[in-house]
Amino acid sequence: MSHFASRAAFETALANLPAADDAAIAAARARQAELTKPPGSLGRLEDIAIFMASWQGHDRPVIERGRTAIFAGNHGFVVHGVSAFPASVTAAMVGNFAAGGAAINALAGMAGLDLKVVALDLERPTADFTIAPAMDEAECLAALSAGAEIVTPDLHILTVGEMGIGNTTAAAALCARSFGGSAAEWVGPGTGVDSSGIARKVAVVERALAHHGTACETPFETLRRLGGREIAAIAGAILRARQLRIPVVLDGFITCAAIAPLAAAAPGITDHCIAGHCSAEPGHRRVLERLGLSPILALDMRLGEGSGAAVAVSVIRSALAAHAQMATFAEAGVAGEL
Amino acid sequence: MSHFASRAAFETALANLPAADDAAIAAARARQAELTKPPGSLGRLEDIAIFMASWQGHDRPVIERGRTAIFAGNHGFVVHGVSAFPASVTAAMVGNFAAGGAAINALAGMAGLDLKVVALDLERPTADFTIAPAMDEAECLAALSAGAEIVTPDLHILTVGEMGIGNTTAAAALCARSFGGSAAEWVGPGTGVDSSGIARKVAVVERALAHHGTACETPFETLRRLGGREIAAIAGAILRARQLRIPVVLDGFITCAAIAPLAAAAPGITDHCIAGHCSAEPGHRRVLERLGLSPILALDMRLGEGSGAAVAVSVIRSALAAHAQMATFAEAGVAGEL
Repeated sequence: MSHFASRAAFETALANLPAADDAAIAAARARQAELTKPPGSLGRLEDIAIFMASWQGHDRPVIERGRTAIFAGNHGFVVHGVSAFPASVTAAMVGNFAAGGAAINALAGMAGLDLKVVALDLERPTADFTIAPAMDEAECLAALSAGAEIVTPDLHILTVGEMGIGNTTAAAALCARSFGGSAAEWVGPGTGVDSSGIARKVAVVERALAHHGTACETPFETLRRLGGREIAAIAGAILRARQLRIPVVLDGFITCAAIAPLAAAAPGITDHCIAGHCSAEPGHRRVLERLGLSPILALDMRLGEGSGAAVAVSVIRSALAAHAQMATFAEAGVAGEL
Repeated sequence: MSHFASRAAFETALANLPAADDAAIAAARARQAELTKPPGSLGRLEDIAIFMASWQGHDRPVIERGRTAIFAGNHGFVVHGVSAFPASVTAAMVGNFAAGGAAINALAGMAGLDLKVVALDLERPTADFTIAPAMDEAECLAALSAGAEIVTPDLHILTVGEMGIGNTTAAAALCARSFGGSAAEWVGPGTGVDSSGIARKVAVVERALAHHGTACETPFETLRRLGGREIAAIAGAILRARQLRIPVVLDGFITCAAIAPLAAAAPGITDHCIAGHCSAEPGHRRVLERLGLSPILALDMRLGEGSGAAVAVSVIRSALAAHAQMATFAEAGVAGEL
């Protein structure tokens, strides 16, 4: 069963994004106004509670079932020396996720999220996108569908993350193609390359952009040519979550870049998304601005794995706890005083 | 039993601040370097784990017993119209804390902190500091000691908060006296006064500073003349926590202002403190800079009650979970690859 069985299925989904629940927004706002605090004094926590209400369709949103979905993939362009680490680290880290030893295991546990890891053909990297599309049509649809399949209708929240040696280079290419700007504006140190590594990344992105040129005429084509399996899977998961009205917490540069092609065509794709954090990767702040998202956290994290999104879920839980549990003026008997 | 039985007891404590545990810092840093992630990639989470280790004196710090302490007091200067709310709201909110209906009840619960609320002579406001010291010596010592008494040696972390109608005005006076700058630079809207209210606050702070002039020659005198009971209690709690090497999470403008006089004399007082958040109150960012503290969160909160500090504890818990639970390279069998 493939959720996105054709380009048309993907394009139809993107053209028919469900809207937030206006009645739930109004009800959640009305509740915030009655809680025992000066209006607006919980700041972003109030906005988060209303955001969650708007997609759960309920004035008192909850997180009883939350999931962190991590997608892993390998990239053909790593032969050009764009990462400080060999491609074998992708599989090694997937093993670490399975064994429970990675940061995301601890952070998802602390956030009360279940963890699903999907390794996408790690032994078969995408094609080198400086000379060919990263994926053929069937590969891209399979990756989009693998993302969609991880999203079950029972979820109250979904966080997305990734593992893929070299994938900040693909993310830079996707952002440059989707939002404009030079390769150098979107390339950063990733997990830790030096200035010569950054120069190699810039050159690889420039060659990819030149090679594919105007062939990236749709979100699907951009993802297929410049993305990767884990990146397409993230896009598929986010689009599927929207169909199911499940709020999504984005993680770092790569998860944002994964929806950059979608957002360039359908800016409303980010309406059900919240930015978990702003990472230390320079392109992340830039893409957040283009997506119109303000991050919950800014802790100079730059790990990926969905780590920043998972930490942000604790803040979201705090927002929901205050929203659900606080007394109203009437209940507290201090009506009119605050 | 009064912990700070005399000025001398307070001054001796401030002059003899225990240092962090260098061995625990080294051990925690060494552990961070071995965990399965690129060095530094967890950003601030790594620093937080090492900070907690440095005060708990253990390479794997924990939060099994954490406390949020809220101190409440009333201020004589509120007769000058510096708040949008009547002084009776202080007691009403203390009632709301006791009934479990306030934001901090929900947020402390989510953060796994017990909640202790100490109401300090609410029916007897401090003297109007535009014409007299806010407290006499015995009152100030009693407030400092009330703060100290809430800090028990079993705690792994302490967060501090306050409730006191008008207390952003006292905080502005304390900051201006401790760090310099005009009253207007330190005054803000608090829980929501308009521009004429801000003008009244500025005038009140200017009159207080002029009245007390150079009489504020010690931290104790500054607290006694320009502070309030809840503010002195916060200072006492933070100083007592330092004696017990318990890390402290500061909340908003008032909790930072409470240690401004101490920090002006003994800058190391903030070494065991972490800034939970930066609030929407303009003076908060300024005082954080003067204290040399970088906030964990910046969510435009401006409620007080320890609310921002409580939300930050979830982030601290995430930092400790990653630090304690992640596999090392050796354990994961990926030594040398990352």
